[in-house]
Amino acid sequence: MNSQTLLDCHARIKPYIHNTPVLSSRLINKAVGAEVFFKCENFQRAGAYKMRGATNAILRLTDEERGKGVVTHSSGNFAQALSLAAQSLGITAHIVMPTSAPEVKKVGVREYGGKIYECEPTLAARQAMADQIAQETGATFLHPSNQLEVILGQGTAAMELLEEHPDLNAIFCPVGGGGLIAGSALAAHYFGTDCKVYGGEPFEADDAYRSLQSGIIESNETTNTIADGLRTTLGDQNFPIIKEYVTEIIRVTEDEIIAAMRMVWERMKIIIEPSSAVTFAALLRERRQFRGLKVGTIISGGNVDLGNLPF
Amino acid sequence: MNSQTLLDCHARIKPYIHNTPVLSSRLINKAVGAEVFFKCENFQRAGAYKMRGATNAILRLTDEERGKGVVTHSSGNFAQALSLAAQSLGITAHIVMPTSAPEVKKVGVREYGGKIYECEPTLAARQAMADQIAQETGATFLHPSNQLEVILGQGTAAMELLEEHPDLNAIFCPVGGGGLIAGSALAAHYFGTDCKVYGGEPFEADDAYRSLQSGIIESNETTNTIADGLRTTLGDQNFPIIKEYVTEIIRVTEDEIIAAMRMVWERMKIIIEPSSAVTFAALLRERRQFRGLKVGTIISGGNVDLGNLPF
Repeated sequence: MNSQTLLDCHARIKPYIHNTPVLSSRLINKAVGAEVFFKCENFQRAGAYKMRGATNAILRLTDEERGKGVVTHSSGNFAQALSLAAQSLGITAHIVMPTSAPEVKKVGVREYGGKIYECEPTLAARQAMADQIAQETGATFLHPSNQLEVILGQGTAAMELLEEHPDLNAIFCPVGGGGLIAGSALAAHYFGTDCKVYGGEPFEADDAYRSLQSGIIESNETTNTIADGLRTTLGDQNFPIIKEYVTEIIRVTEDEIIAAMRMVWERMKIIIEPSSAVTFAALLRERRQFRGLKVGTIISGGNVDLGNLPF
Repeated sequence: MNSQTLLDCHARIKPYIHNTPVLSSRLINKAVGAEVFFKCENFQRAGAYKMRGATNAILRLTDEERGKGVVTHSSGNFAQALSLAAQSLGITAHIVMPTSAPEVKKVGVREYGGKIYECEPTLAARQAMADQIAQETGATFLHPSNQLEVILGQGTAAMELLEEHPDLNAIFCPVGGGGLIAGSALAAHYFGTDCKVYGGEPFEADDAYRSLQSGIIESNETTNTIADGLRTTLGDQNFPIIKEYVTEIIRVTEDEIIAAMRMVWERMKIIIEPSSAVTFAALLRERRQFRGLKVGTIISGGNVDLGNLPF
């Protein structure tokens, strides 16, 4: 692993993804007291950064493997991304989704041609059903966050952000399964100039915060958070990277998440999902630490169920 | 009036406005059956295209006039725009707003340093109070839509759109007071290549549609539309331009407005206000006419009261 590994990954997926815009707002900068650059992966194909990792993982399969399709389990964004990436490359995507997944995400998977299999909303049930499908169809299992090719793909968002703003002092990422923050941490390490990486996590699903404290992968007993993309836990592939390269994980309350989401919707006129708002909420909470600095934040996605908003 | 008039106007206001991005979406193109280009004035300063006309009108005042400030009445977006434009140029803005204006727009005016005067939500009450303030303070009255310098300023959004996409077959604009569509029609006339201009208007406030039928400026008996920016009527400065250069005004139902707004929020991840959705709703309604063509649409603004959404 070196900077070339990420450069190769970026070159590989480039034809299939958008280089999403980086937006900023004077009012937001004033509220934070820093220069904030939003990398808008809500404008990514399929509405989230997950398209990057999904595309890279599929492109690394052999022709024979591609012929048998891919299978994953996901609460939503990776499901849509893998469906669209598979459709673009003419292969079959089997998608295991928890019954609790937002309707808008199921609709997206169907539109992108993914085959949905519903299961109970537990990690064990999701994994068991995915394993069964892999066995029956010969499809390759792709994990949404705990697989090196996926992690590298997700890291390309931070790479593009650093291409545009090479002098960022910090990059904020949401922490769910750990793929995005691990990839971003690698990108900041290889392409930043002393650019620190911070995670944002709900108090209600603070497994990554506790994992960094204890040194082993912790799980959540409950996950009563509006940030539905961040209810998952870290994995053995991304945790070592996070331990080595992430400076701190900042936890936020549900009220802080909703207020941050509302501020971005109102001020920037862009739709970001609660999991993305966690990142901006973390920056707002700890803004004294970042006064006068240049801070990037990965807006991970914009797939929101408009029939079920918190305001 | 010739193309140079608009070029001069654009050069004058350029330092004070954003050249807003033009976005498109494969899914939207598929739904419409045309190539659709959204000129995103929801990302304009103060959240709407009105910043353009307000800035141009202020920059055309003498130093003595600027010293006495400006006054206007507006249901919202022009109020915010004039406040911000005045603040940028260090002059006072007196803003008459109907009591029915969305709270988020009043907050915006206050943040941009405008002085708010509330009045009954009728055109007569608004005009009377604005006249009184002009008399007492010596401030210059600037009309949100019925004044040539404002109309020219609003036309610069369509100019920029045509700079990026010179071969558009049509441009869609919302029709409220008539300033935006009149300015856009001038821009299409001088800078387009046989580019037709269409208006979108709610059935519930279809004064412009009826005005074009009868040949005289008609008013609305009621304006029960969610598109709060489109409840006003045309004026003697913009109506002659609209009569000469606008091809057709397409009316849409309230349900069509809400569905179009939801489609843009969900697919494009951008916040557009109901008045902007009217334009896209009109294009969707008449999409058979535009199959295979290149169509621009002015997303006029993104100032929405999130506490009062239609879905």
